[in-house]
Amino acid sequence: MDEPRHMTPDEFRRCGAALIERIARYMEEVEQYPVLSQAEPGSVRARLPSAAPEQGEPFADLLRDIDEIILPGLTHWQSPNFYAYFPANASGPSILGDLLSSGLGVQGMLWATSPACTELETHVLDWLVDLLGLPQEFKSSAAGGGVIQDSASSSTLTALIAARERASAGAVNEHGAARGPDGAKEPRLTVYTSRHAHSSIEKGVKIAGLGRENLRLVEADECHAMRVDALEAAIAADRAAGAVPAMVCATVGTTSSGAVDPLPAIGALCRREGIWLHVDAAHAGSATICPEHRELIDGLEHADSYTFNPHKWLLTNFDCSCFWVADRAALIEALSVLPEYLRNRATESGAVIDYRDWQIPLGRRFRALKLWFVIRHYGAEGLRAHVRNCVALADWFAAQVEAHDAFALAAPVSAGLVCFRHRAGDALNEALMNRLNESGALYLTHTRLDDRLVLRLAVGGTATRRAHVERAWARIVETAGALSAEEFAA
Amino acid sequence: MDEPRHMTPDEFRRCGAALIERIARYMEEVEQYPVLSQAEPGSVRARLPSAAPEQGEPFADLLRDIDEIILPGLTHWQSPNFYAYFPANASGPSILGDLLSSGLGVQGMLWATSPACTELETHVLDWLVDLLGLPQEFKSSAAGGGVIQDSASSSTLTALIAARERASAGAVNEHGAARGPDGAKEPRLTVYTSRHAHSSIEKGVKIAGLGRENLRLVEADECHAMRVDALEAAIAADRAAGAVPAMVCATVGTTSSGAVDPLPAIGALCRREGIWLHVDAAHAGSATICPEHRELIDGLEHADSYTFNPHKWLLTNFDCSCFWVADRAALIEALSVLPEYLRNRATESGAVIDYRDWQIPLGRRFRALKLWFVIRHYGAEGLRAHVRNCVALADWFAAQVEAHDAFALAAPVSAGLVCFRHRAGDALNEALMNRLNESGALYLTHTRLDDRLVLRLAVGGTATRRAHVERAWARIVETAGALSAEEFAA
Repeated sequence: MDEPRHMTPDEFRRCGAALIERIARYMEEVEQYPVLSQAEPGSVRARLPSAAPEQGEPFADLLRDIDEIILPGLTHWQSPNFYAYFPANASGPSILGDLLSSGLGVQGMLWATSPACTELETHVLDWLVDLLGLPQEFKSSAAGGGVIQDSASSSTLTALIAARERASAGAVNEHGAARGPDGAKEPRLTVYTSRHAHSSIEKGVKIAGLGRENLRLVEADECHAMRVDALEAAIAADRAAGAVPAMVCATVGTTSSGAVDPLPAIGALCRREGIWLHVDAAHAGSATICPEHRELIDGLEHADSYTFNPHKWLLTNFDCSCFWVADRAALIEALSVLPEYLRNRATESGAVIDYRDWQIPLGRRFRALKLWFVIRHYGAEGLRAHVRNCVALADWFAAQVEAHDAFALAAPVSAGLVCFRHRAGDALNEALMNRLNESGALYLTHTRLDDRLVLRLAVGGTATRRAHVERAWARIVETAGALSAEEFAA
Repeated sequence: MDEPRHMTPDEFRRCGAALIERIARYMEEVEQYPVLSQAEPGSVRARLPSAAPEQGEPFADLLRDIDEIILPGLTHWQSPNFYAYFPANASGPSILGDLLSSGLGVQGMLWATSPACTELETHVLDWLVDLLGLPQEFKSSAAGGGVIQDSASSSTLTALIAARERASAGAVNEHGAARGPDGAKEPRLTVYTSRHAHSSIEKGVKIAGLGRENLRLVEADECHAMRVDALEAAIAADRAAGAVPAMVCATVGTTSSGAVDPLPAIGALCRREGIWLHVDAAHAGSATICPEHRELIDGLEHADSYTFNPHKWLLTNFDCSCFWVADRAALIEALSVLPEYLRNRATESGAVIDYRDWQIPLGRRFRALKLWFVIRHYGAEGLRAHVRNCVALADWFAAQVEAHDAFALAAPVSAGLVCFRHRAGDALNEALMNRLNESGALYLTHTRLDDRLVLRLAVGGTATRRAHVERAWARIVETAGALSAEEFAA
C-alpha cells in the first residue's frame, strides 16, 4: 500500500525555517499594509480553486499563496495602527509558545493525558493571582483555581452554568430550566448586568436556557457604570415576583467605553443576597499588573469568578482567556460528566485537576505554554512597562482631543481606551470613521453612548509607539477638516 | 518611560529557528519516550518557581525547561505507540499552518475583521463536502455551510441550540427552557441519543438548560448501534406525555466501540417527525475521504447538521472540528446577538458570513490555515492513503486477536478502532492495561461493553507503522501471558 507523503523532520526543518522567516518579515512589514482589509466580499474565494487538489503540492506553493491570496484579505490586527475593538496583541514569545503547543500535539482533557499541560496551567494561573493582585481565594492552594478558556464569552458561560446550578441546587442540570412562578412549582432564575455590558452575557443567558427576558440590563450612571441602587431594586422586584436571582455579571472596563462597575458595593450586595458575582475584565484586567491600576479591582474579594484575556492586551496571541473561581467544587459539580472511557487511576485518586470539568468542551490545547513564554520572556517588569506605555499613549491622545475645539471626549479615558467624537454630530463622525478606515492608515471602530455615535481608539498594539498615535491624531484632525470643508462646500 | 523588551524580528528568527529544530528533534525522538507520562501528581509543579520572574529571562532558559520540566510530564499523543482514546494526530503542514495563524494574529469574529479568515474557512469546508462525499446541501452555495469549531462537544452544543430554537420557535432564547407539561403552558423539549453516544451530548443538554432527565439514552442492538424501534417508541411516549422532541443525535463511530447508528432509518424517522437530526462522526468521519468507507454516512442527506474532527484522524493538530448545517439561517437565528460596537457595513450588506453567529464564543482564530495546509500538502490521495494505512493496521491487529485462543474481539472493527479482551475476565484485562501503560511501550484505554471491561486499540498516529502495531501485539500477548502465569502461581 502507498505511504502518504508525510513531511519528514528534515522537511519540517526546511519548511519551518521558511515560514519563520516569512512571519519575521510580516512583523517588519505589517505597518505598511492597509490596516482594514480592502477586499470585496468573495474576492478571496474567487482566487481559490473550486476543488481540493488530488495530489499533494509543494510547500513553496503555499508560501506563494500566503502572499498572493491571504495577505490581501487580512485586516491586520498586529499593525501598530490598529485601534479598533480591543487589541488582540501578540508577541514573539507567545507565537513560539503556541508553536510548541502545536508541535507537541498533546491534548489535556485529563491530568493523565498530559500532566504538564494541567500542572503548568494551574501554576501559571496561581502566579497571575499574585502578579495581578487578585484575591488569594482564587489560588489552587485555597478552594479556588484558574483555567484557560478560549474567550471571555466561554468564561462567562462557564460561570453562568456554575451560578445557575448553585442557585437551583442542581435542578436545572437535572430537570431543565423553569419558567416559574406563573403556575409552575419551580422558580425562574434571573441574571443581572449593566446595559453597557458585553453581548456575550446575553448570548450566554440564551445558550444556558435561561431566556433573554430573565436578563436584567441594569441602568448605568453618567460614567456608564452600573447603578447599584438600580441593581438592588431589580433584585428586589424579581424576588417579590417569585424569581431566584442567580448571577450578577459586573464589568471592569466595558467594551463600549471602558466603564468600571462599582465592585465594592455590588460585591457587598451579592454577598448579602447570596448571588453569584462574576466579574468580566476581559480587556482592562491586564492593567492590574501595575499596582497603580489595582483600584480597578477593588472589591473583587466578593467575587465568585473572574475573567480577563491575556489575548487582548497582555501580548499573548488569541486564544487565551484566564478564568478563576473562588470555589472550584461548585464549578466541577456543575460541569462534570464521567463516562467509563475517561475513567483513570489519577482521576479516581482525587489528587489531580481534570480541566475538562472546568470548561464547555472536552478536549483542550496546551495553551499555558504561550502564557508561560510571555511571562518569562518579559518578566513582570516588562509586562508592566507595556501596559504603562499604552496607557500613556492613550492619555496623550485624550489630551489632544480635549485641547481641540472640534473634538470632545465622550467618556473618561479607561485602560488605554479613548472614546471621543467630533462635535459636528453623528453623520460627520460616521463619515470620519469610514474615510479613516478606507484610507488604510489606521483602523478604529465606534459605539453609541448617550444616544450619540462615538469613536473608540484602543491603544494596545505590541508595536504601537508614540509616533503612530501622533500620526493617527494628525490624520483624524486632517480628515475631519476635509469632511467639514466638503460639507460647507456642498 | 522604559520600553518593554519586545522580541525583535531578528530575535524571533533566531529563537524560532531553535524551536523549529527542537520540534523536529521531538518528532525524531518521540518514539523513545514512555507514551503515558510516568509523572506523579504535583511533580511538574514542584519544579516550577513559586513566583513569576520579575525580570525577563533568556529564551535559552525556556528551551532548557522544555527538556527538563515539560517533556517528562507529557503523555505523548504523537508517539507511534499511542493507541488510547482516539488519536489526535498532527503533521508538519498542520503545525506550520497553525504557526502561520499565530504569527498573523488575526481574529475572525466578523468577515470584516479579516475577510480571508472567513472566506478560506468557508471555501475549505465546501471542498470537504466533496472530498468526504457529504450532501451538497451542506455547501455554502446551497442553504447550508460549514464552520470550524474547537471540538465536537462545541459542535454538538451549537447544533443543540439551533435545534432547541427551531423546536420552540425561538421561545427558549426568549423565555428560557420550560418544564412542561405538568402544569405549565409550555412543553418540555426532549433529546435522543444512543446509550453508547459520547458524554458531550449529556453535557450539552445540561448546558443548554434542557435537563438530563429529558435526554433519552436509547437502547442499542448487539453491535452497540441505536435501535430505531426503541427510538421511535421513546419519541412516541414523549409526544403522548406532551413533550416536544427537539433533536436526535446519531453517532457514526461511537467512542466506546466505533458503533454506527443506522442513519437511513433514523433520518427517515426524523424527517417524518420534524426532529432536528445531528450526526456526530467526530472520529470516523475522516474515513469517508475514501469511497470505500462512504457507507458510514449513508442516509446523511436527512441530517440537519454534521460534525467530524480533522484533529482526531485527519493529520490536523487540535483544535479543528468541522461542523456543517443544511440550513444556516436556523443556526444564525439561534445564535446571533448584534451589539452596536460590532455593527459594520459588510455585515449590513448581507453579502458576507460572520462566523461569530455560528459558534458559542465571539472571537476566533484563523484555524482554516492548518486545514488548508494539510489538504494541499497531502492532496486527497495522501489523505486517503493515511486512512487506508490505519485501517489496514487495525484489521491486521484484529486478525491476530481472532486467531489467538486467549483473546476475542468485543465488537466489530470500525474505522481503525479494535475493541478486544482477554478471555480471562475483567480483572486480568484491567491488570493487563495497567501493566502495558506503565511499561511506557504503548498506551491504550478501556471501555465497558455488555457489562465487561474491554480494551480499545485505536490506530491513527501519523507515525504509526506496521512494525509498531506488531510490537504492540507481541507485547500484549507476552504481558497477558506473564499475568496469567502470576495468577496461576499465586
